[in-house]
Amino acid sequence: MGNSIGKILRITTFGESHGPAIGAVVDGLPGNIPIDIEKLQSYVSRRRPGRRYTSPRQEPDNLEILSGLYRGKTLGTPIALITRNIDSNADEYKNISSAFRPSHGDYTWQMKYKHRDPRGGGRSSGRETVARVMAAGLAEQFLDYWAEVNQRPPIQVLSWLEQIGPIKIDYTPELWQKYLKGLKREEIDEDPCRCPHLSTSKNMIDYLRQLQEEKDSAGSSAVWLVRNVPCGWGEPVFDKLNSRLAKAIISIPAAKGVEFGEGFHFANMRGSQANDLPYMEGNQVNFRSNHSGGIWGGISNGEYLWGRVVFKPTPSIGQSQKTVNIYGQDIPLIIDGRHDPCLGIRASVVVEAMITIVLADCVLNNSTATISN
Amino acid sequence: MGNSIGKILRITTFGESHGPAIGAVVDGLPGNIPIDIEKLQSYVSRRRPGRRYTSPRQEPDNLEILSGLYRGKTLGTPIALITRNIDSNADEYKNISSAFRPSHGDYTWQMKYKHRDPRGGGRSSGRETVARVMAAGLAEQFLDYWAEVNQRPPIQVLSWLEQIGPIKIDYTPELWQKYLKGLKREEIDEDPCRCPHLSTSKNMIDYLRQLQEEKDSAGSSAVWLVRNVPCGWGEPVFDKLNSRLAKAIISIPAAKGVEFGEGFHFANMRGSQANDLPYMEGNQVNFRSNHSGGIWGGISNGEYLWGRVVFKPTPSIGQSQKTVNIYGQDIPLIIDGRHDPCLGIRASVVVEAMITIVLADCVLNNSTATISN
Amino acid sequence: MGNSIGKILRITTFGESHGPAIGAVVDGLPGNIPIDIEKLQSYVSRRRPGRRYTSPRQEPDNLEILSGLYRGKTLGTPIALITRNIDSNADEYKNISSAFRPSHGDYTWQMKYKHRDPRGGGRSSGRETVARVMAAGLAEQFLDYWAEVNQRPPIQVLSWLEQIGPIKIDYTPELWQKYLKGLKREEIDEDPCRCPHLSTSKNMIDYLRQLQEEKDSAGSSAVWLVRNVPCGWGEPVFDKLNSRLAKAIISIPAAKGVEFGEGFHFANMRGSQANDLPYMEGNQVNFRSNHSGGIWGGISNGEYLWGRVVFKPTPSIGQSQKTVNIYGQDIPLIIDGRHDPCLGIRASVVVEAMITIVLADCVLNNSTATISN
Amino acid sequence: MGNSIGKILRITTFGESHGPAIGAVVDGLPGNIPIDIEKLQSYVSRRRPGRRYTSPRQEPDNLEILSGLYRGKTLGTPIALITRNIDSNADEYKNISSAFRPSHGDYTWQMKYKHRDPRGGGRSSGRETVARVMAAGLAEQFLDYWAEVNQRPPIQVLSWLEQIGPIKIDYTPELWQKYLKGLKREEIDEDPCRCPHLSTSKNMIDYLRQLQEEKDSAGSSAVWLVRNVPCGWGEPVFDKLNSRLAKAIISIPAAKGVEFGEGFHFANMRGSQANDLPYMEGNQVNFRSNHSGGIWGGISNGEYLWGRVVFKPTPSIGQSQKTVNIYGQDIPLIIDGRHDPCLGIRASVVVEAMITIVLADCVLNNSTATISN
Repeated sequence: MGNSIGKILRITTFGESHGPAIGAVVDGLPGNIPIDIEKLQSYVSRRRPGRRYTSPRQEPDNLEILSGLYRGKTLGTPIALITRNIDSNADEYKNISSAFRPSHGDYTWQMKYKHRDPRGGGRSSGRETVARVMAAGLAEQFLDYWAEVNQRPPIQVLSWLEQIGPIKIDYTPELWQKYLKGLKREEIDEDPCRCPHLSTSKNMIDYLRQLQEEKDSAGSSAVWLVRNVPCGWGEPVFDKLNSRLAKAIISIPAAKGVEFGEGFHFANMRGSQANDLPYMEGNQVNFRSNHSGGIWGGISNGEYLWGRVVFKPTPSIGQSQKTVNIYGQDIPLIIDGRHDPCLGIRASVVVEAMITIVLADCVLNNSTATISN
Repeated sequence: MGNSIGKILRITTFGESHGPAIGAVVDGLPGNIPIDIEKLQSYVSRRRPGRRYTSPRQEPDNLEILSGLYRGKTLGTPIALITRNIDSNADEYKNISSAFRPSHGDYTWQMKYKHRDPRGGGRSSGRETVARVMAAGLAEQFLDYWAEVNQRPPIQVLSWLEQIGPIKIDYTPELWQKYLKGLKREEIDEDPCRCPHLSTSKNMIDYLRQLQEEKDSAGSSAVWLVRNVPCGWGEPVFDKLNSRLAKAIISIPAAKGVEFGEGFHFANMRGSQANDLPYMEGNQVNFRSNHSGGIWGGISNGEYLWGRVVFKPTPSIGQSQKTVNIYGQDIPLIIDGRHDPCLGIRASVVVEAMITIVLADCVLNNSTATISN
Repeated sequence: MGNSIGKILRITTFGESHGPAIGAVVDGLPGNIPIDIEKLQSYVSRRRPGRRYTSPRQEPDNLEILSGLYRGKTLGTPIALITRNIDSNADEYKNISSAFRPSHGDYTWQMKYKHRDPRGGGRSSGRETVARVMAAGLAEQFLDYWAEVNQRPPIQVLSWLEQIGPIKIDYTPELWQKYLKGLKREEIDEDPCRCPHLSTSKNMIDYLRQLQEEKDSAGSSAVWLVRNVPCGWGEPVFDKLNSRLAKAIISIPAAKGVEFGEGFHFANMRGSQANDLPYMEGNQVNFRSNHSGGIWGGISNGEYLWGRVVFKPTPSIGQSQKTVNIYGQDIPLIIDGRHDPCLGIRASVVVEAMITIVLADCVLNNSTATISN
Repeated sequence: MGNSIGKILRITTFGESHGPAIGAVVDGLPGNIPIDIEKLQSYVSRRRPGRRYTSPRQEPDNLEILSGLYRGKTLGTPIALITRNIDSNADEYKNISSAFRPSHGDYTWQMKYKHRDPRGGGRSSGRETVARVMAAGLAEQFLDYWAEVNQRPPIQVLSWLEQIGPIKIDYTPELWQKYLKGLKREEIDEDPCRCPHLSTSKNMIDYLRQLQEEKDSAGSSAVWLVRNVPCGWGEPVFDKLNSRLAKAIISIPAAKGVEFGEGFHFANMRGSQANDLPYMEGNQVNFRSNHSGGIWGGISNGEYLWGRVVFKPTPSIGQSQKTVNIYGQDIPLIIDGRHDPCLGIRASVVVEAMITIVLADCVLNNSTATISN
């Protein structure tokens, strides 16, 4: 239970870190949507481990599509996608098969299900998220096609890292506006830290090197941003756009907080400062500010959606830690596996994926909010 | 669409601010659970407007139970509860019937549904939340009974305000521990700002008075805390306990961010600092810290659940604001209605309610995670 | 659990036979749909008891609308409707408060929920179905508006009784075609047995009189028919149009079987007889027969939907029956309450209601099967 | 949309007849349940084509398990199972790639989704049902384990063919009782027509031979029977046990009607004949008859569940039929593919599967109907 998300576009994922495969079933995409498999593969490869400051585990993440497509187009039937787990060296997890790694799911999953796949954390591993990205790659192509058919600019979903430990982008208002309006996903993808501010990224790398030496890890935070969402998406009162995004983003392993627009800064603001004032620009409603992050009353207002997400430090560290094992003994534990020193780098790709999944469902939900011929 | 929450315990709410009634249908409570109606009424009355620094609208919020109970016990059938809207002076909303109030749902709901009840914001009003509290009152009595039958300490859900604009509780480690372990809900309820720190509360009141004179409003943040949740609640990977809580909390009007445990402070932490180390205390697993907020891998670990939530300032302010109306005209707008100068005060009651609703569903979900006779 | 139906149009009902009220919450109707309250009241009054060969219980079934409408149009928010239980003479149920009536829900509901409202069978009473009809009245007005906007003929849902015990309409092919193409709901509504064939209806009445004298009851079967459903409704493979209809129809109290098209007669047919052959009529696809009942591969094909449903005899009879009570004793039982001698008469109104509810959801679901601008 | 079934035990299937694979994801099984893979494979092989009077298509239906199991036990995570489509000779479908086969899903799926996989009917093929049987094989092992843990006799789900065209088992009351109480699934599986009455089966075979010569096909009907379901399963009012079963059974390709207990015979019965009278047998409630098919008020009463299902004749026949194609032309069509002359034979295995899937969900749902420690 709990492995599906979405209402009309319903995505179900499966797979353990060191089991045969990781996969997703995407049910609810309309029929007759063109899908470009190469583009899908590229989308997925963006979160692949094996890059410099992420885990050295080598997974090609080659997609295999089992159903739902015919001659390059969706059939309106469920699309099942899998990727095999190849580089799964279960041996290196031997020393943790009976230990509960601190701040990991080992202990809680064991208590809940009374049985556990300890290899790489089983399904509580970050590897699970490749299924989300596969599904999101389809969702993005659907959104692109929807925009094209409706003659609208494509929806652009971005998430970049702005902080790793003490290293943080120091925005000027100009830089912030530049990023909001013009930053491209390619610029983020190219950076090893997924941080578009090059000097900050350089400092982040230095910091991560130092952490690796100290066998430690770092927390991080990321901005998320969506351009070109029309007014009207989100279903109050419980399926508000922000509620759905919050659920989807917080479901990402290690995500420990999420903000919309000014987020926690709102605590320090007054209504007269915080309100976004609309005005007419020709026939169009426009806004003098976007503190709200593009959502009013749980529904998108046509502005950019934006906010932040925070990730806790990778709990798997090479230092000796005190913990307990399944036999109820106190033990010391050194975790030697292949782990990202900063989870946020790859997780920010998953943030983009989860937002894309939510939005693809929202456009379908919203199409039923009014009657048309 | 979007007016139900929960999987096994499924709550559906309805009602507009100035319509005939606000109500909830609670489906999925087990049969034969004793329900104390007076206690339920008291629970609901805690969020009632008409207290000092909340809206002066007077609503008795008298509950009417339409179904699902017989001789003081649940039937296992849906329990429908309503409260009539009595003090709904729709006249005072006349000047806003065609205007879109900035940072409100007026504009987005109109765009989405093409028709709107402008009186008090219709269903986008905070008044909607009384239905959530009614449902939560039932959920709490269910959780209490569950704890009793299972001979466990009762689950305690609290949320207190710790910040209004620049006024903020300055925690010492001792004060924090005292609140975590010993603070009672009654102490929070008694305070007009729902802030248990009396001198801070006094300053908050002074600040709110000043804001009212300036026809302005304040943002705020609240802590949420749950005691005595057993290990094992939450359904990974999309219905993790934190995902569900995030969705539920962010669905509260004006909530703009939510954190779990250290939340955004994790960005500044290292793994060696952030990890919570378990140890054996007799036969019991205990933890040296609780930075994680009691959730590991999306499942409760037996520790306190805690985190924070932020509320934006009340968007309805008495100052003249520029906005647009449904005719596509730029207009000035002064909002005279009855509004809380700080939404967070009452909203923190709703935070407790939403958490309670989620937890009551979680205990039922979790009962299916393993087989027992 | 189990008191909601539908995916996009989600209907939740509540209420016990002798509790304060019976009600429904209809969530998911688009906004801005005109709703005629008087028409809704008339629709509901059609199933009202107190007519000749149905239970003499007198319930005005006056609708009260609690939310979701404003100035005669839907808001896109949940519409809650209730009707009070007024003529609920609980006294007459005193002798059954501890007895389990044979073939009723008394025993099974008690075993399942450990607590029961024995008055009139509580929620297992046929009175529960008034909520379904209220919801269906809204759904029908939505479907009518959808047809109007799409410049299509209105969807017509009919169900008539064709058999009560040994009395049965003896169709000629001409009569069957006449009913399929031209029978009006008013003609059915006017007949005390909801049987449009007058001489059969007269015989049914004679038979029911005789049964009443013998303190017995009769089984029955009804045809259901839907005109003007376009090709394309239904979501394979589990939410096929026939699957959804089967679930909805069989959920009606006393319904014990349902057929689509030729139904059980298919067992005696060959493929060469059973297949419906399509042909072109101008630009339109038409069909030489409709044995399938208008559904191919789980999706409507544009033909009439039709089939049959059977109802068991009213289990409450005035004869002395042997049964057991909650104390585990064998007892004789005479049920004196007010009961329909033939449940199918009123149940056929509920068949129309359930079909309408399913179809209204289907049109919304189908609107997401392809992309349009 | 529409490819999932169940509430707590949620099964999602995917796959087209001639695509790469057919599969199922089973989410919601409790953790720590032993699963015997060989037994699962045997369960699935029972519906395999290639037996005498079913389609000659040869599919080994070898299961591949992608997730959710570890060391022979469930992890509480989703179990994904696939089987590859190997013997998929798409060439033979060339002549139907543009034609709409009468009474098939070709036309309606094309109209709905605007794109279609014509090879073997794509997802509207009976081949889709192998996924259901795979999922049911897991569900059965779960039910067996549940029964064992609860020290109850195992739940036995059977479905046998009793009629093919004019050939029908002629039950004596003794034979019926013998089948109800003692018939074993192995006896059904061994028969080429899945008919336990050997002389009837022989006649069925003769009839099918004759039909094959005449390039025609036959309708059929089957009994379904479940032993050892305890009292209490089913969730009124919309998720009644019978409603759920009706939906699940009618979702099987070619199923055109379903009955519970006496089904359509109830139309001819009186209450005094139809009622099942309970009596005490020691401390146990027992029943003098089981006309109801073991369900009262939507909840199982502890008796056998039973009823019937009808299947239309295979619509694919070798005779020339008139139809239309996707270009809007009238054409003659001869279908040469490999098709079962009587779908009901294999479909009755799927009936068992769908019932098993429903019951496995019901036991989980029912575990939340009351509180226990």
